[in-house]
Amino acid sequence: LRASLDDWLQRFRAGERRAAARLISIVEDGGDEARDVLDALHPAIGRANRVGITGPPGAGKSTLVDRVATVLATDTLVGVVAVDPTSPFTGGALLGDRIRMGDALQQGRIFFRSLASRGSLGGLSLHTSEVVDVLDAFGCGTVLIETVGVGQSELDIVEKAHTTVVVLVPESGDSIQTMKAGLMEIADVFVVNKADRDGAQRLADEIAAALDLRFGRRPDPASWRPPVLLARARDNDGTPELIAALQRHRDWCATSGERRRKDRRALESRLRDLVHDAVQREVWSDAAATRLFAQGLQAIERGETTPYRVADSIVREWTKQPAGRERRA
Amino acid sequence: LRASLDDWLQRFRAGERRAAARLISIVEDGGDEARDVLDALHPAIGRANRVGITGPPGAGKSTLVDRVATVLATDTLVGVVAVDPTSPFTGGALLGDRIRMGDALQQGRIFFRSLASRGSLGGLSLHTSEVVDVLDAFGCGTVLIETVGVGQSELDIVEKAHTTVVVLVPESGDSIQTMKAGLMEIADVFVVNKADRDGAQRLADEIAAALDLRFGRRPDPASWRPPVLLARARDNDGTPELIAALQRHRDWCATSGERRRKDRRALESRLRDLVHDAVQREVWSDAAATRLFAQGLQAIERGETTPYRVADSIVREWTKQPAGRERRA
Repeated sequence: LRASLDDWLQRFRAGERRAAARLISIVEDGGDEARDVLDALHPAIGRANRVGITGPPGAGKSTLVDRVATVLATDTLVGVVAVDPTSPFTGGALLGDRIRMGDALQQGRIFFRSLASRGSLGGLSLHTSEVVDVLDAFGCGTVLIETVGVGQSELDIVEKAHTTVVVLVPESGDSIQTMKAGLMEIADVFVVNKADRDGAQRLADEIAAALDLRFGRRPDPASWRPPVLLARARDNDGTPELIAALQRHRDWCATSGERRRKDRRALESRLRDLVHDAVQREVWSDAAATRLFAQGLQAIERGETTPYRVADSIVREWTKQPAGRERRA
Repeated sequence: LRASLDDWLQRFRAGERRAAARLISIVEDGGDEARDVLDALHPAIGRANRVGITGPPGAGKSTLVDRVATVLATDTLVGVVAVDPTSPFTGGALLGDRIRMGDALQQGRIFFRSLASRGSLGGLSLHTSEVVDVLDAFGCGTVLIETVGVGQSELDIVEKAHTTVVVLVPESGDSIQTMKAGLMEIADVFVVNKADRDGAQRLADEIAAALDLRFGRRPDPASWRPPVLLARARDNDGTPELIAALQRHRDWCATSGERRRKDRRALESRLRDLVHDAVQREVWSDAAATRLFAQGLQAIERGETTPYRVADSIVREWTKQPAGRERRA
């Protein structure tokens, strides 16, 4: 098995596409082999520009991502990670809908991967970062991470990106509400898509006015003021402007030190997630903890104790134990 | 402080509305006091019927919830917990939009609480359950939990309810896709809202056909086949039918043993969350772990090690330590 993993790693380093797909699958499956892959690839991780694209369902994110990926793919390998495309409600884009990327996808310049958001042990956010890591190590210059920005875990994902694009449409609703809700804090670039519809210019103006309030009309040249772009992704209108904005933000991140800060924050958050994962696994592989859990459930149901007290007793019992303690068979 | 908490608890048990609001706030803030409240209320928790209402943004969930709450409030206290109403994209219902519930809300028969999904330490799902617990202990016969069912944590919430209502609208998109994506597994009741729009009957028929496939045309009377209801919540059309369906499902849960099973599953999941929370707090209050974390970050940045190795070393070092080990100052 080990020999076979080494073989895949070697083929991966040689740029073999099938090896990339294989290693991504291993990472998606999790467990010891996933960990071995990520450890082995670690020195090669960190070069890709990670761009999160988020917005409400129906804003045209997939189309926009496909347009951008297709253009970028003329210069570099591009990774596209679509998170939660199988959510019950988003209606999501399956690979079949992605034929716009057709040529570049065929020629192996774009790697597309969709991640379901259900049931991933270590949390969706950790999981996504790890898949992006593999694409990064494979040499993708840019990885586009597309999420429906509604849930907490989806927002965690975009916050780990270097650049976050927020896509809105005139129907997104009351923009003032949007402002209040913290979008201003996560967006590096705004795109008002479906810009031929009523209200598009008004939405863009409102966002710009809110940005004026925040940055002033003559912003500090050292700070980044998110541009507000109009686009009609379906007609491929606005793609060059978006790509230029991504490039400017990338350059600004590099020169301002923001990239280093973001990478540090993402690493901290990743390491924290890994520790939480590992410590949880430790607890549930401990025989005493497992027994206390089962007994505690029954005691709670009999009304003899409370969930908090049981949780405490499990943690107390567990942390009291020296190394080499009893293990579940 | 302790005296004052006891005072609030006493007033809570006497049915004082302000005390309920106060204890909910304490629980929302988390920490030791939250834990004391939940421990104290624990014997009174477990009577409420917990109903999750989920569906895509714009399906009319808030209106439906308001209608149902208003009717139920003629019989019992009703809790309404709206999760993530301030999400950047859902556009969400603020209390101001909730004037439909006006009278019952004024008369103190409905408790409305909105929970933001951002930044809650122990996870949104745990948090929400605890607020629902307080409403349960206060004597709410039904607690309606409204979420935009897109993110993982939002789905975790509805899965802890006794009854899950999935609200769809004709524009929800390809219903077959919906079926595939696991909605069939979480829905106890389907509501096709905005039923006067084109495609409403077709959507209802498609859901029914999918249910036929799953349950057969003559379902086992011992199993629950989700009804598919048509509604126009804005015009208060369909509310009595929905309330009747909720009542039927509640009765079925009680007689079939499903309620006991669901309560057990929810308790297990809750206890697991609490253990994870407690164990994480233990780790990060450990001086050695905190030091290894900081050192590890730097070593990773220097390319000397990998995140997985550092996480391992933290957990290994930590679990090796006997009780009474070094604490962070």
